Amino acid sequence: MQEKECRLLVVGSIGIDTVATPMERRVEVLGGSASFACVASSFFVPTAMVGVVGTDFPETYMNLYRRAGIDLRGLQIKAGKTFRWSGEYEENMDHRKTLSTDLNVFESFSPEIPDAYRDIPFLFLGNIQPALQLHVMDQMRKPAFVMVDTMDLWINIARDDLLRVIARVDLLTVNDSEARLLTGAPTLVRAAKELLQMGPRYVLIKKGEHGSILFSNDSVFILPAYLLETVADPTGAGDTFAGAFMGALAEMNTTDERSLRKAMLYGSVVASFGVEDFSLDRLERLSREEITIRADRLRAMMTV
Amino acid sequence: MQEKECRLLVVGSIGIDTVATPMERRVEVLGGSASFACVASSFFVPTAMVGVVGTDFPETYMNLYRRAGIDLRGLQIKAGKTFRWSGEYEENMDHRKTLSTDLNVFESFSPEIPDAYRDIPFLFLGNIQPALQLHVMDQMRKPAFVMVDTMDLWINIARDDLLRVIARVDLLTVNDSEARLLTGAPTLVRAAKELLQMGPRYVLIKKGEHGSILFSNDSVFILPAYLLETVADPTGAGDTFAGAFMGALAEMNTTDERSLRKAMLYGSVVASFGVEDFSLDRLERLSREEITIRADRLRAMMTV
Repeated sequence: MQEKECRLLVVGSIGIDTVATPMERRVEVLGGSASFACVASSFFVPTAMVGVVGTDFPETYMNLYRRAGIDLRGLQIKAGKTFRWSGEYEENMDHRKTLSTDLNVFESFSPEIPDAYRDIPFLFLGNIQPALQLHVMDQMRKPAFVMVDTMDLWINIARDDLLRVIARVDLLTVNDSEARLLTGAPTLVRAAKELLQMGPRYVLIKKGEHGSILFSNDSVFILPAYLLETVADPTGAGDTFAGAFMGALAEMNTTDERSLRKAMLYGSVVASFGVEDFSLDRLERLSREEITIRADRLRAMMTV
Repeated sequence: MQEKECRLLVVGSIGIDTVATPMERRVEVLGGSASFACVASSFFVPTAMVGVVGTDFPETYMNLYRRAGIDLRGLQIKAGKTFRWSGEYEENMDHRKTLSTDLNVFESFSPEIPDAYRDIPFLFLGNIQPALQLHVMDQMRKPAFVMVDTMDLWINIARDDLLRVIARVDLLTVNDSEARLLTGAPTLVRAAKELLQMGPRYVLIKKGEHGSILFSNDSVFILPAYLLETVADPTGAGDTFAGAFMGALAEMNTTDERSLRKAMLYGSVVASFGVEDFSLDRLERLSREEITIRADRLRAMMTV
């Protein structure tokens, strides 16, 4: 078990996924927002995870977390089965269809934060029910920077709670269609302006292969995605981005905009590695040196 | 008539467009690749135009060209009607449907290059039949830099001529779907690699609101589009980009990659102004100072 002091706490889902792409199908592989985010963050800072798995959760996946040095004292193991998700990607990999979702132990998940975690300065609230995200924030003593992710489901069925969450965080991340759904605004710029008025200092819009955009009240930063020849499996790319982003920010230990821009570069780069293989396979064999090299390359691709 | 020495020659279509967006419809407005490219280029260098119009071409549009200082000695006026095009944009403005195309005098267009134009160093071949693009190249003495644009129609019905064109130019520009159509490659990176093998030193892929990418054999440059709150009419954005890009490059009078990257910045910025209104309305009231200010802003939006 990791005993170094954690700089980032991640709360999110842990799932066992079955993923089909036009090329290949993988059955019962590790997934979930907390899995991707924690492993991505672990390249930068010791990271603590709060989530839930069933008693069927394979020991090999637990060992994967341990090898990444993730602090698992907040990981709940409940009688029952782990959350299962199954999905299928279309031809060009930019649309996917959910085939099945079995919440299992995740249905009654209540994120209890161990006392040892309550002073951790950086917090990433992965995509879970907004009421649970509020419950996490209520337990933290004084986080320096809180980032939250969400999805269309919560925008549609738990909007009031979600707005309460958004009002309390430093950074909200959504994809472009969620930004439009949440605001009804016709363009990204207008959507981002409305989201900023809901409270967060920053709004980070994810556009998949087209990159990501960071909005504040007085600035915009547009980051292209690193270009890949082939994408094996886009599952978890957003969570990988978020985890590496928060890990890099926690490592710098500053929250000024210049640091956020740099952290986004790392988020994009680690996510680009992640999609080169299924599940966490590529992240497992990734090195910090590879991240540095690709970050330099991406920077060179953006330099006028 | 413009008497300064022209630095850029543009050959392309001149049309009278009827454009419908979800918000508004404009009837019989000025369009065509040569119109957009020449006016965009005129902010940077004196530009010569080769194209054809009918005897019905409105004097107001001729005056618009003159006010932009465009050298019109290569503009043919033929008995008959000017090329007409009509199209309609869908809800989110990223897809459009062509409603009608009447080639009229454009059907028998043969681009004859006045002797005074044959030493112009920079050449932009707008989207016309590849055989005509070859005919233009055959008349030029020794251009320093040739850029060519094309479209799905020519890829489908005039592929051999198009490949001959591509083999002879310095830069090929296509949009992402045309890049895939021309090569059959599944990803942009692979498509760009295959296109580079066809001969050009550079391939510039246009991705609309998601920006553009410049590929060479040993580098990649990714430029985001300038973000706008509202887009009135995207018609001509690609030609405006190309015209301002070539104009800026001709003004710098160098063709190294660093200059190409800078020129793309100007291309993107002038195109972003162009789509703020219908036809050439916004370009008509645009100033070089506005371009400089927005170019600085876009650069700041890309800086890590």
